[in-house]
Parts: sequence; structure tokens; C-alpha cells
Amino acid sequence: MKNRGFYIGRFQPYHNGHQSVLERIAEEVDEIVIGVGSAQFSHTVANPFTAGERVMMITRALEGLGCPYYVIPIEDIQRNALWVAHVRSISPPFDRVFTSNPLVVRLFHEQGIDVTSPDMLERHNLSGTEVRRRMIAGERWEELVPAVVAGIIEEIDGVARLQQVTKTD
Amino acid sequence: MKNRGFYIGRFQPYHNGHQSVLERIAEEVDEIVIGVGSAQFSHTVANPFTAGERVMMITRALEGLGCPYYVIPIEDIQRNALWVAHVRSISPPFDRVFTSNPLVVRLFHEQGIDVTSPDMLERHNLSGTEVRRRMIAGERWEELVPAVVAGIIEEIDGVARLQQVTKTD
Amino acid sequence: MKNRGFYIGRFQPYHNGHQSVLERIAEEVDEIVIGVGSAQFSHTVANPFTAGERVMMITRALEGLGCPYYVIPIEDIQRNALWVAHVRSISPPFDRVFTSNPLVVRLFHEQGIDVTSPDMLERHNLSGTEVRRRMIAGERWEELVPAVVAGIIEEIDGVARLQQVTKTD
Amino acid sequence: MKNRGFYIGRFQPYHNGHQSVLERIAEEVDEIVIGVGSAQFSHTVANPFTAGERVMMITRALEGLGCPYYVIPIEDIQRNALWVAHVRSISPPFDRVFTSNPLVVRLFHEQGIDVTSPDMLERHNLSGTEVRRRMIAGERWEELVPAVVAGIIEEIDGVARLQQVTKTD
Amino acid sequence: MKNRGFYIGRFQPYHNGHQSVLERIAEEVDEIVIGVGSAQFSHTVANPFTAGERVMMITRALEGLGCPYYVIPIEDIQRNALWVAHVRSISPPFDRVFTSNPLVVRLFHEQGIDVTSPDMLERHNLSGTEVRRRMIAGERWEELVPAVVAGIIEEIDGVARLQQVTKTD
Amino acid sequence: MKNRGFYIGRFQPYHNGHQSVLERIAEEVDEIVIGVGSAQFSHTVANPFTAGERVMMITRALEGLGCPYYVIPIEDIQRNALWVAHVRSISPPFDRVFTSNPLVVRLFHEQGIDVTSPDMLERHNLSGTEVRRRMIAGERWEELVPAVVAGIIEEIDGVARLQQVTKTD
Repeated sequence: MKNRGFYIGRFQPYHNGHQSVLERIAEEVDEIVIGVGSAQFSHTVANPFTAGERVMMITRALEGLGCPYYVIPIEDIQRNALWVAHVRSISPPFDRVFTSNPLVVRLFHEQGIDVTSPDMLERHNLSGTEVRRRMIAGERWEELVPAVVAGIIEEIDGVARLQQVTKTD
Repeated sequence: MKNRGFYIGRFQPYHNGHQSVLERIAEEVDEIVIGVGSAQFSHTVANPFTAGERVMMITRALEGLGCPYYVIPIEDIQRNALWVAHVRSISPPFDRVFTSNPLVVRLFHEQGIDVTSPDMLERHNLSGTEVRRRMIAGERWEELVPAVVAGIIEEIDGVARLQQVTKTD
Repeated sequence: MKNRGFYIGRFQPYHNGHQSVLERIAEEVDEIVIGVGSAQFSHTVANPFTAGERVMMITRALEGLGCPYYVIPIEDIQRNALWVAHVRSISPPFDRVFTSNPLVVRLFHEQGIDVTSPDMLERHNLSGTEVRRRMIAGERWEELVPAVVAGIIEEIDGVARLQQVTKTD
Repeated sequence: MKNRGFYIGRFQPYHNGHQSVLERIAEEVDEIVIGVGSAQFSHTVANPFTAGERVMMITRALEGLGCPYYVIPIEDIQRNALWVAHVRSISPPFDRVFTSNPLVVRLFHEQGIDVTSPDMLERHNLSGTEVRRRMIAGERWEELVPAVVAGIIEEIDGVARLQQVTKTD
Repeated sequence: MKNRGFYIGRFQPYHNGHQSVLERIAEEVDEIVIGVGSAQFSHTVANPFTAGERVMMITRALEGLGCPYYVIPIEDIQRNALWVAHVRSISPPFDRVFTSNPLVVRLFHEQGIDVTSPDMLERHNLSGTEVRRRMIAGERWEELVPAVVAGIIEEIDGVARLQQVTKTD
Repeated sequence: MKNRGFYIGRFQPYHNGHQSVLERIAEEVDEIVIGVGSAQFSHTVANPFTAGERVMMITRALEGLGCPYYVIPIEDIQRNALWVAHVRSISPPFDRVFTSNPLVVRLFHEQGIDVTSPDMLERHNLSGTEVRRRMIAGERWEELVPAVVAGIIEEIDGVARLQQVTKTD
């Protein structure tokens, strides 16, 4: 079996921090499985983009990666004790997990699966929260994401969507 | 097809603000579809009344409206991208939407459906939150709702229910 | 409280048998609550019409009934032991139930609620199954339903829909 | 039928306060049904332990109770109006409820079921929140729970789990 | 950790075949976890009894077993790939599984868990299906179940319930 | 926007018929979105393989396609009226649909979306049902699927799994 690594995020939106982590992971594995978490959400302040839009952002941004990858939308289930089995059932098999999320670390750890949380995965200044804050405030956000992602967000009128749903209390 | 308008709220409880908006909508359409949102909730601080109780409040309060209407309980679905399809599947067909909720505006707008958010729909001093606050505080609330609605709330012992569930942290 | 009766069906589609039963119930109660069961289904051989379409059929057909009524879409829940509580939570309160369905009789009976299953509720020659069979076969079905219902079904292209979904194995 | 009492909690974890209440209830009924609420949750700050782990804590701690009891995991349903029916469907029948939770009191009260909220059920200094706070802070918590419960928590590495999931924002 | 065995069934109703299997398992383990499958169903031809009723049948029938046991209602989840994690999350930990159901065997096997399917677990003449058939037909069924189980079924009017729901097509 | 086509199947397993259809679609569009339907099922007679396994089969088999594609697991929702919105929310946007399934044709048609059901999509002798029948019977099935798919099925011990779950009634 190929040496396959798993990486998960919500990608709201996909930004340069994700890109740089994935480029580093690509050097360590044969193939990458990218889980698009909270796939069921969209049109909220924290989750403006649909799973389909996020799949497209990731796929486009990684076109030149030189390492095969799978992009898998993953809906939340409300039961942490089942989450690893849930992820495994909709992903191609993987033997390493790359994450710095303590809950994800714990859930895989309790199933006996190896987790890598190296420095490269440390939280950057860059976060989806910051990108969305700039979008809402009307500040410049385009430089924080790959150019193709900025293009997709414009195509789907994403900033206007986020600004509008933010007005709902 | 008749010119049918859609109006949605949680109606916790139905109050004079809803009544005045619906009287204005009644002048612009042949029939009104009234969606009772968050239908699955009851016995909470924000949602004390069951969908059935709210259906009864609305139906009674609108008895003299002079414009046919449908009252449809609508459960939340946790997926905004499916919400318009969800509403359409349990409502008689409608071609206009009346709302001042920015998320609802956005979701219908992305499906190419006309939304009217006129002044008459502006947030009144009057809100369900204020009615419930008075109920909890033991202040006078009856004047904020149609008389028949006050009668229903007394019949179902609604104020005591709200006060009691408020005590739960 | 008013003397209110509850009647439930799937109404796929609403036909003359339903109409005649409801006219009889109207003589015995002050108000009728009509539950539109299996509200979540549509576009199948057994359930071709959406809840919204069925609400519209019933409302139109009963316009001259002379007895107030509520039409409430009711989704299935997969737990019979909760079904009565589910129905009660989304319906205005009722004290009598009219049904000839043995499961519904049992579920209400175990909750101590009076059920009437008189002769008038006996299964007619007329059934939704027969109406749908004729639609699929291209035979005459219009005489089995109220004229306004036939009009709605034509408006929504209902026969073509049923014939097409029937082709799916 | 035996005189059976119902008591519900989340038991995150089961502590001496629960134990003392159950010992008092044991003097008043023939059998006790213990509902393990929010059974679907685990690995969160407020709900670190799985339902299975909590069932084991309770069963072990009550071994010498001298009153037969049932321990039943109960998942939340998001509909308060159905909650009593939900509980009744998965519990052996009971005729008394012991609780000091105002929402639970209300829900049973509206179904005509007797609720006892005596002094013995008053909130102790002792709460699950305090036990978990100490676990997270690395303070002594073992004296707040029965010895067998402390043993189970050590066996499943429970404190480390709680500390780790707490790091997730 | 104790040597704990897991056994699952639907127990519609609990009968002498279950009893004899559990007596044999009791000789091989320190404690037994008994999963009550399809816990969400009741009032159907194949699943007449609620989970609570089944918990009571089992608990009573095993009173003299001499081996500690846990009785855990387990709702179906519609995803086989998550089922083992689901069972584990609501059960005390176990290291052996006793079953002759090929799907259960496979699901545990794929998770690396030992399954025992000895002769003692072979399908008896005795099955829940046969007990229910006799109940529906009005034949003698009492001798197929432990005496306390027959008593519970009479107490809850179980045969009449089954006969009535059978009349629904 | 690119000219993107949508094609859906259950792919239990992915076989030569799917492959030949996708090669034809590849000639007509810029990109293909492949929906893996009934993603939540596995370990049943009709659905032996997990979504993750099916994603891997498809991705491997299409490696030389020369047309970019997305492989998206799609869970069933039980509401046909919401299905198109569901698919759209987790897929990159598409403007053409390729299918010969009458229900899928109807659902997209009612949303005003173009469906192509050409000869090339006609049901082949080849079907997933036939592949599974051969697997269960111990006949030769390998020639009906791409070589890489046969390799994956062997790797995951797929035939033994199917044979075993088939033994469950």
C-alpha cells in the first residue's frame, strides 16, 4: 500500500497557510487525503462557503503539487467517539495523520493511529478567521489566499455573501 | 397561478408586529404562506411554544384577514444550502418572499427568487424577545399581542412554562 | 376549549374518499386538524407529491366545508413510541382522533386517547393506490378526485412525474 | 407493578453528590432507573466520558446499594416536546421522577407525572463542573468521587483526555 | 481489566434460546454486556416491544445468573462502517464478542476483534419470529420464554398490541 | 466558467461500463464531477464497499483519462425534493448532467437543468448487480472491472466480505 497521509481543515476559505502545510506534507508521503470538514455548513459567518466551493478551491490551488491527492467532503457527526470511524469510511485508507488540532490528535491517538503535529503545522498568523474578518471589514484579503482561490471567491460573489449573512444576528 | 407571498418567522410568540406586517402583505398578494420556523423547538427560553401552539395563535389572530393563508410548520435543517428547497417542498408554491432577515434574503436571492424587504418589515420596537422578557419578569405583556393570542397563552399556562424553563442553566 | 378532531393520511393524492370522510367528521366536531403524513417524501411511486402540493390540494378541496380546519405537514419519525408526542407537538390540541389505521389506533390508545373508527372510515373502493395505478397506466383518474385537485395535478405536471419516477427500478 | 423511580444526570463524571442522592432515593422506591443523559457526547470539555464509561462508573459505584437499579444511556433529542416519550420508550416503566432540573420538572409535569425535588436533591457544592475544573487544573479531584470511579478514570486515562480536548478552542 | 464478553440481539421478545446462550457465556467471562439492538423500534410486526420493555425482560430473567451483566439499548445507525465504534462508545469495554450473525462477525473481524460463534450459538428451533407468529395466531407461546418474561408481556398487554399492529398493511 | 458535467452512480463496484461512459463524457466537457451515491452504505449485499474504497477505485481507474475530474461522496437524503440542492452544495458547479436514471432525470428536469441520456448511457449487459452476483457465486468477475479495481478489491479482501455479509438474512 502507498504511504498515504490525512490532513483535515474547514478551509473557510483555503489560504496560503494551508497551501504551505500541504506542500510540506507532500514531501513526506506518496499521496494526501484532504478532508473538508464541517462539509454540511455554508452561508454562515464562520462557514460562508459550501463544500463544493471549497473542494474546487483546494483542487485548483494544488494543481501543480506533484503529489496525488484526494479531496473528500466530511460532514460533522455529533459523536466524537465515532468520528475516526466516520473519517475512515469515506476516505481512501491512510496510515499517517497530520494535524495540530488537540481533539483530532486525541481521537486518532485513542484508535492507535500515528499523528504528526510538527512545527510546520503550528498556527500561523494566517487563519481563516483573519481572512473572513478582512472580507467583512472590506479590507484587502486577496494576498492571503492563492490567486486561483481569490478568483473563485469573486466568481461566486463570496465576499458579498459573507457580508450579508453577517448582518443576521 | 395565484400571486402568492411567503413570510417566515419563529412567532415566539406571535405579536402585534407580525400582525401589522401580515395585514400589509395581504394588500399585495392573493394568498399568503406563513412559515413557522424552528418548528421542532419548544420549552426553551428563546422558543417556549410548540409549533402546534404557534399555528393556533396565528390562525386565530388572522381570522378576519380577508386574504387566504396557509400556516406551515417548518423544522430547521442544519444546511443553509438546502433551506430554500426544504421550504419550497413543504409549502404551496409562491413567487414572492417578504422578509428583512439578511440570511433569508441571501438564500432566496442565490436561487433567483425575488425578496421584498420594505420599510413595513423594519424591526419594530416590538420583538418576540421583548415579549418573552416581560413574561419572565412578570411585567405586562398582554398588550403586545392580539387578544386571542393572550387567551391561548393563558389557556396553555405559557407564562409559567417560560418562567420555569428559564430557571434551568 | 373547542371540540377538535384529528384525521391523518398521506393524501397521495387527496381523493373523493378523503373528502367524504372529512365531510362526515365536520358534522361531529368544531374544528378539524388534518395531518399530512410522510411529509418528507415526494417523487416516488407511492408518494409522488410533495407536502406543499398536498397541503394545497386539501385546502382547496375543503374551501366550502363550513368547519374550520388546520392542515399540518407531519414528517415520519422512525420511532413509533414517540409518534403521538410528535403529532401533538406540531398540531393544535385535539381530543378526538378519527382513523381506521390499526397502528394509529393502537398508538393513541396506549396514550389514553379516544379513537373513533366508525363505518364511515372503512376503506372505500377508493384508495390512493388505485388513483396512482390509473395515472401510471394512462387510464382515467380525474373522476376519483375533487375537480380542484385534478386541476392542481395538471398544473404541476403530476402524472408525467409519477410515470417517470415509476420507470426507476 | 413495583414502585420504580427515575433519576437522570449526565454523570460527567459520576461523583459523591450523585451517590448520596441515589442512596436517599433507594430508601423510597423498590427499584431505580438511572438515565445517563447526553449519551451521544464524549471527548468534549463538558462531556469527556463516553456513555459506556459512565455506565460502568455508576454500576460499579452502586454495587452495594441494596436496591435494584437499571442504568440506561439516553441520547438527547432536539425536541423537548418529545423528550418524556423518548425517555419512557427506552426505560422500564416508572411512576416517580426525582430531579431538581427545572426543565425536566416542567416536561414531566406537563405529562401529568409526579416529580419530587426535595432538599436532598439540592445542588451540592459538588458538581461535575467542579470535578472537571480540578482535573483540568491538575488539582486533587479523587476525593470527590467514589473510589471505584477514580479507578476507572485512571484506567481509561481520563484526565489526560480531558486536558487534551480542553486545548481545542 | 475484567474479562468481559459482548452479546447482541433484538430480543423481540427475550426467549429461552437467549437464556440458554447467556448461561453458557456466563461460564466463560467475568461480566457480560448485553446489547439490545434496534432499540428505536417498537409497535411493529417484527419489533413489537420497546427497548425499555426488553431491558426489563432481560434483567428479570437473568436475576439468578451469578455473573454480573449490563443491559444496554443500542439504536441502529444506518452506517455499517461505524457500527463497531457506535457499540463500543455506549458499552463498557469488552474484549470478546459472542455472535453467530455473519454481518456482526465481519464488522468486528475488520476491527481486529475476536468473535466466538460456537455451536451453542447456532440458531435454535427457537426464534423470536416463531414466538411472535404464535402470539399473532393465538397459539401457546408462553412456554418458549422465561416465566417472568411471560408475566411482563401480559402486564403490558403485549399480545394484543402485536395482533393489532399486524392488521396494518 | 468551465463546461463541467455531472455523472452519478453507486459504483458497487466501479466496472468497465462506468469506465466506458466516463471516457465518452470526457470528450464532451472540460471537467467531470463524479458523484459516489449512497456514500453512507457499506457491508451490505447491494453495497459492499465503503465510500472511501469506491473513491479510490474510481480515482485509480481514471488516472489516464486526460480530462480533469472530481470524485465526491454523496450521502442519500431521504427527501427527493431536496436532492438536487444537496448535490449542488457539495459539488463544484456543473451545467450538464449525464444520467439514464429516470428519477435523477426528473429531479434535475424540475430544477430546469439539462440532462443528457444518450445511447452511450444505456444500461449495458454490465451492471454492478452482475459483478456482485459473480463474486458471491465464486465465478470470474475480474474481467468486468478495470485491472486496478480488481487489485483494490483483493487488497481489501472484498469478495470475502461480500460473501460473508450475504449470509445474514
